[in-house]
Amino acid sequence: MTARRLKLTVAYDGSAYHGFQRQQNALAVQQVLEERLAPLFGHQLCMTGAGRTDTGVHAWGQTVHFDTEGRIPAERIPRAARGMLPADIAVVAAEDTDPSFHARRSAVAKRYLYRLRHDAPESPFGRHYAWMVTKKLDVAAMEKATEYILGKHDFSSFRAVGSAPVQPVRTIFSAGWQAEGNLLTFHVCGDGFLYHMVRNLVGAFAAVGRGELLVDEFAALVKAKDRSLAPPTAPPQGLFLQKIFYQWAKNEIYFFQGIDSRDVF
Amino acid sequence: MTARRLKLTVAYDGSAYHGFQRQQNALAVQQVLEERLAPLFGHQLCMTGAGRTDTGVHAWGQTVHFDTEGRIPAERIPRAARGMLPADIAVVAAEDTDPSFHARRSAVAKRYLYRLRHDAPESPFGRHYAWMVTKKLDVAAMEKATEYILGKHDFSSFRAVGSAPVQPVRTIFSAGWQAEGNLLTFHVCGDGFLYHMVRNLVGAFAAVGRGELLVDEFAALVKAKDRSLAPPTAPPQGLFLQKIFYQWAKNEIYFFQGIDSRDVF
Repeated sequence: MTARRLKLTVAYDGSAYHGFQRQQNALAVQQVLEERLAPLFGHQLCMTGAGRTDTGVHAWGQTVHFDTEGRIPAERIPRAARGMLPADIAVVAAEDTDPSFHARRSAVAKRYLYRLRHDAPESPFGRHYAWMVTKKLDVAAMEKATEYILGKHDFSSFRAVGSAPVQPVRTIFSAGWQAEGNLLTFHVCGDGFLYHMVRNLVGAFAAVGRGELLVDEFAALVKAKDRSLAPPTAPPQGLFLQKIFYQWAKNEIYFFQGIDSRDVF
Repeated sequence: MTARRLKLTVAYDGSAYHGFQRQQNALAVQQVLEERLAPLFGHQLCMTGAGRTDTGVHAWGQTVHFDTEGRIPAERIPRAARGMLPADIAVVAAEDTDPSFHARRSAVAKRYLYRLRHDAPESPFGRHYAWMVTKKLDVAAMEKATEYILGKHDFSSFRAVGSAPVQPVRTIFSAGWQAEGNLLTFHVCGDGFLYHMVRNLVGAFAAVGRGELLVDEFAALVKAKDRSLAPPTAPPQGLFLQKIFYQWAKNEIYFFQGIDSRDVF
């Protein structure tokens, strides 16, 4: 029988995992997927993910591909996987795909969300899924600062110190903030992101919101291409890999439709 | 100095606790509150809560009272408590109250919410804060059944087997279902609830929603006063003690304003 290439869309609560990518000495989401789903296909699985996520970072739309000779119809995989995976990982979609499809290399865009609760009331809920900021932030100033990341820029000011020396130019197609009560959701869609880039951007926007960094200073920071000048990284638990785009779908990328947390929690 | 009586409103994520009430061999929310907050007042605390909650059950508005000679102004307590309590317990309000105030005995009504996700998509999120029901439920039938619990009834069909032999008559002031996407929230306000009563009611409403119990059969079940005839108890993680009422506030009790999960998670 000929091998098939399968594409899975995977959601996970990253709280208990050392990120997505398989590691030697710590449990990652990829390892759980490969090991738990192997019996569905009758052989060891070797998956390729669209992107890494860090410890504590979540995903609604991580995408993986792998080759298999297993015969299970793709549409039956999400249901079958439910019984094999722990409750914090789910296969939300599965489809047969062309052998040339590659979860990482075929991607044309990625969208991340970052959830932040400001002017935060005392609450024991949601702390694993949002950054709790006690102070009330100036959202209008944060919106203004956000305009300076749109388009093609060298994002060296927002890359993790010591990360691999890949080229630091990325194009941001859309970005903005959505406010619902005291919940702020940052959405950003681009052709790719440097390591820690989204969390570093959110850390800087929060500094703008607290009045510690002026909008003009933020604009200068982008131009400076120097990580040492930027505010600290935002914590991981607010970050969600929302979607990997494999075709241009202009309306969806440029005009963010908003997300309703009630659909999730 | 004369002792003061303080009233605290407390929220907690019950996932990690064996309920609210202090126990010999398991960690309860009350023990954490009494031990962690003692340094704020300079002496051992002995709190009285408005009601028990079971293992895994949450609260937005549990209420406690205690006497203290500590001098900290009430309005400073929520902020001060933040640094002393674990992240899953929060004091949301504190006030000086009359020495005749009693968290349990002074209550005139209590409101619980039960969150249930039906026709549930594969999702790794929210499982600690909702009952995930795979099947699509008939919400209209559940609404009809809910009418039969309004008013004064003997709720023996919905009391926990083997629970203390208190009188089983309770008055339900308001109850109903709110649907937002596939999230169903049951709200119920009454003068009191038997042990497991809300979860047993939700278990029976879900049986109605699945078509396993007709609305007429539900009505007969209320009249039967026999727990052995009723469907199984709903799981604890969907249940939230929302509010304890100490004064009649008719509009709020009778006309449920709805709850927006975005304000919480």
